[in-house]
This record gives sequence, structure tokens and C-alpha cells, in this order.
Amino acid sequence: MDSGAAQPAGTLEVLGWRDGHIVAIDQTMLPHEIRMLHLTTVDELVDAITRLAVRGAPVLGAAGALGVALAARLAKEQGWDEARLAGAVKRIGDARPTAVNLHRETEATAAVIPDGPAAVEAAALATLAAMVTATHRMSERGARFLRDTCGPGPLRIETHCNTGSLACLGWGTALGVIRALNNERAVQHVVVDETRPLLQGSRLTCWELGQLGIEHYLIPDAAGPFLISQGLVDAVVVGADRIAANGDVANKIGTYSLALAARHARIPFLVAVPESTIDPGTPDGARITVEQRAADEVTHMQGVPVAPPGTPALNYAFDVTPAELVTAVVTEDRLITAW
Amino acid sequence: MDSGAAQPAGTLEVLGWRDGHIVAIDQTMLPHEIRMLHLTTVDELVDAITRLAVRGAPVLGAAGALGVALAARLAKEQGWDEARLAGAVKRIGDARPTAVNLHRETEATAAVIPDGPAAVEAAALATLAAMVTATHRMSERGARFLRDTCGPGPLRIETHCNTGSLACLGWGTALGVIRALNNERAVQHVVVDETRPLLQGSRLTCWELGQLGIEHYLIPDAAGPFLISQGLVDAVVVGADRIAANGDVANKIGTYSLALAARHARIPFLVAVPESTIDPGTPDGARITVEQRAADEVTHMQGVPVAPPGTPALNYAFDVTPAELVTAVVTEDRLITAW
Repeated sequence: MDSGAAQPAGTLEVLGWRDGHIVAIDQTMLPHEIRMLHLTTVDELVDAITRLAVRGAPVLGAAGALGVALAARLAKEQGWDEARLAGAVKRIGDARPTAVNLHRETEATAAVIPDGPAAVEAAALATLAAMVTATHRMSERGARFLRDTCGPGPLRIETHCNTGSLACLGWGTALGVIRALNNERAVQHVVVDETRPLLQGSRLTCWELGQLGIEHYLIPDAAGPFLISQGLVDAVVVGADRIAANGDVANKIGTYSLALAARHARIPFLVAVPESTIDPGTPDGARITVEQRAADEVTHMQGVPVAPPGTPALNYAFDVTPAELVTAVVTEDRLITAW
Repeated sequence: MDSGAAQPAGTLEVLGWRDGHIVAIDQTMLPHEIRMLHLTTVDELVDAITRLAVRGAPVLGAAGALGVALAARLAKEQGWDEARLAGAVKRIGDARPTAVNLHRETEATAAVIPDGPAAVEAAALATLAAMVTATHRMSERGARFLRDTCGPGPLRIETHCNTGSLACLGWGTALGVIRALNNERAVQHVVVDETRPLLQGSRLTCWELGQLGIEHYLIPDAAGPFLISQGLVDAVVVGADRIAANGDVANKIGTYSLALAARHARIPFLVAVPESTIDPGTPDGARITVEQRAADEVTHMQGVPVAPPGTPALNYAFDVTPAELVTAVVTEDRLITAW
């Protein structure tokens, strides 16, 4: 019952389905340890999502789809009633509020529940397979846009957070664009924002770029706008957690400051996402719920306090970049330069 | 021989002169431990400056002045020749490249060397005393400007890095402006950037604001521009390490992104500095040497690696904000809104 939809990053399975349960890399342990999670209950999946062991907007979509397959199987085996299954599906879809993918793929897969667990499983695996090929098309289109806009390179690209296989399956979104550019020998190096507070850039993006053999430099987040202002970056490429109907982009906190600096320096600011990240149901960025996370992610590092005891913190996980600062959005199907 | 120029933060002496040597708080140990350094040789002083145990542009100026007093005393006691004393003075002045204060106060005090160690000591202590009263005048002037510009408040003020007693003696620069506003009950709260990589905001500014009883919230640096864009900040106040003759401002990495966001949101971006920070010898920001520090400040946290082994990092300690993004510069003597 091993799944052909298992997603390797190098030789690793980022997220997959095996023997009726979900397997996933524990992304909180990277880059120090490769620990595989075996998620056999809805509680375990929700916990893994909440503590960011399973993360990245597209991966969360896939996790939602597989989560419904898991819940449907458990419901049949354990004789859950409809209300209990519906409650489990809702808990999966609501495990994190900002990424539209999680909620959407959970709902879409749940629509297959009346056809039985086998059909739900098949639908979830088909969703994963489609996501992988979509990253290839999106990446190639984004790379073409950057070469058309910046010239043939080699280019110095800045990126934020983690958007590779670990976050998105397949090639990833923003990191997929970089990978496609690199396949054409058009990357000089990548400037990687560390992405405080949880350091997805340091821990995950540097690790993935190392696996791919792409030259890269880690920086503190607040250095990004300065490097852009000094002419040391040719283009910024990021992913997104949700794009509103008017083109406003919700992405990891820090994205807005890069978009502002890119506009000031007149370099392209490209957002790479699957179509599923665009949410016609959200009219603009002001309607996007921005998740606020625990203060201790900011006041502690590696479990050690870095601020005086009791210091209050504001920990917005995302920010909203207005559409006017975005040069283009690229998806598996299209290039969007005006909304 | 205790000095009346010793500088308390609460009851603490940030930097002072006692029994012919320099005493200073080891700022790398805050907020966890209050450890006093007794610096009895030029090597010990240069080491303390290099590893940021003694830090903050104005404090570095005072440390330079006291360092020359220390060197002059040692030279007399140990019979150094002129070349050895000149070499010691040069090592103090060059211990860090970006802050103009260190170099300038070192040179100014060295000019008194021909008059003997007692005269050098008196000159250095006079420099410290003048710096303290200058912070009071600067702070009051900055507070007046913000009330005139933003209304009577209470205001929500964002600041970056550490600019209080610990960095500047007396009331400090940017934190002195906040303190003066707070004395008039015109502060709602302070938004404190953590200031990666060395976390001067988390460790030092939160500690000083706590000592002063001023409400504050810690944030990751990259959240600052977003909070500004959302109307959650009324004004940004920072210090500076050097201001060029055309008004370009070199300050802790991350300052530029706040200035850009403040301009976009049409809120004031105020820079508070002693006159000595303005450097007529540097025509513009492009001529300011920006110190690059060790990669492991970015790749490690609390001594623990957060990136894969061998990850290269770019660690610019400062950035340069063009004068056009600065609403005003306030000093002990004047308010500058055009250069």
C-alpha cells in the first residue's frame, strides 16, 4: 500500500501515505536530524501541523487531503458516526488559520467521503500527484519571467522563508523557480533570509539549497532591504500563504519589507504559488486573518530566554503585501501582472 | 579617586573611571547577569569593545576617551616610548570601524597627552559629563518634535537596537526621547525590534524599558515594517552610528527598512544623536565603511548551530538610510529637517 505519490527531497519523503497512515519529515528537527513522523490519528496530525512539524502552505493542503483519507479510514474501522467524522475533518481544516490550502484541500477531499474510504484515499493521492507536476510548470514559468525581465543572468536572487520540496512537494514554489533557473545555469547565488522567529530560512532553505548544490548566503531578515538598496540583489522571489481576489499577498512576516525595498530599487518582486493559493472568496488583504503565535517564539531562542522574564511580544506569523508592490504572480497555469 | 562622571542606569554604573582604570557593565551578559568589568590594560579595553561588552556609539566615544587616559597613565608608570603610546591610542580608536564617536573622542583626548596623564584624565571625565547633559537636551528636543508632529499622544513608538543609558550614558538618544515623552505621560507603548543577530533590542532595550516602567512589546525585526503599514505605530525613533555631511544615516542593520516603511505610511522617522555623530568629513552614505562581522553570529544562536554546517552568511552590522527618508535629526543643539 506504499504510495507512488511519496515526495522525495533528495532521497527523503517529505509527506506521503503508507499502510493507511501519513508519513512526514518532522521539519522542526531539520537540519540536525532527519526524523520521520508516523501519523496514525487525527490528533497526531493536528498536533504536527500546529507545532509546524508539517508546514508550508501547499504541503498543508496535501496534509489536509491525506488527513481526510486518514479520518475516513478510521471512521469506518472504528464505527464513528457522521458528526464525529465531520468534527475530525473540521479540526484538520482549522488547524492553522492563514493558509487557504489547508482548509480548501480538506474541504475538497471531504466531498468524496460519501463514496467511501478507498475513494477518499484515491482522491487525496491524486491531489498530491497533481501538486507535484504543478510545481514544475510554475517553476519553469517563473524562471522564464525572471530571465525575460532581468536578462540571462547569472542572477542574484533573494528569498524568504522556506518554499522548496519541504514546503510544497515537487520542486516547490519560489525555490522551484530558483531550481528551474539553476537548471539553466542562470543563478549566481541565493540570498536567504533567516526568517525569524522560527528560522525556516536558516534551517530549511539553506539545507535544501545545499542538497541542490546552489550557492547561497544566509542573512538576518532586516538586512534584506539594505542589500536590495545597495544593488546586491537582482530579483526577489517568494511564495505565499494566501492571495486575495485583488492580488494582495499574505506571506511569512517580513515579506512586506522586501516588496517595499524591491519597489524602491526597481527590481522584480515575484510571487510563485499554486492556483489553489489564490482565494476569490477573500476580496482583499484586510480580510485575511493573520495568525498570532505564542510570545515565547520571540522571547526565547533554543529554549533559552533572550529577553527579561515576562517581556510581552507581538508575534504575527504573516504580513500582507499590497498588490501594487507585486511585480507578478506566477502559477502552474498563468502569469498575472495585473488584477 | 572615584569619578563623579560614573553613569547610573537605575543604580548601575554603565561606564566609569575608578582608581585609574575603567569599569563597565559587560553588556553581553544582560539581562541575565550584571557583571562589572574592570579594564586595566589597553588589550582588555580593545577586547571588550570588539566583543560588544562595551557598545553603543556614544558609549564607545566615552570608552575611547577613558582608554586614552588609561594608556597615558600606563605609559608613565611603565615608561612606554612615544611610539608605543601612539600605537595603543591607534588600537583603541580603530577597535571598531563604523562608529565615528570612538575614533573622534580617542583622537580628541589624545591631543591632551603632552600635558600629562592627570590632564588627560580630567579631559576624559569632562567629556563624559558633557555627554550626559547633552542627552537630556537632545531628548527633550526630540520629544517636543514628536508631540508637535504627532499630537499630544499617548504615542506608540517603534525603536531599533539599544540607545538608552547602556549605549549612550545619561538618558540615551532614541530611548532618551522616549523617556522624555514618558515623563510627560505621552507614551502609550514602545514597539521594540529584537535586533538580530545580537538581540540588543530583546536583551538591552526591553531591560531598560522595564527598569523605567514603560510598557513595551518585543517583535521580530521583519515585523516592524508590517506593523507600521497597518497603522499600529505613530512614529519611529532610532539613534545612529554615523551621519554623513549630506544627512545619510548609518545605523544598526534593519534601520533602512523602518525608514522606508515609515515614509510609505507617512509617519515621522526621527534620528536622535549627539552632535559628535555628525561627520562633516564623510560626504555621503556611500563613503561610510559598513562593518561586516563574523558569520557565526547569524548561523548560530546561543552557541547552537541553526543552519547546516558550513553555511556562509553575510553579516553587515549596519545599513545606510538615505537622508531623503529621514524626517528629522535631533541633537543636543538643534533640530535638522533639511541638509
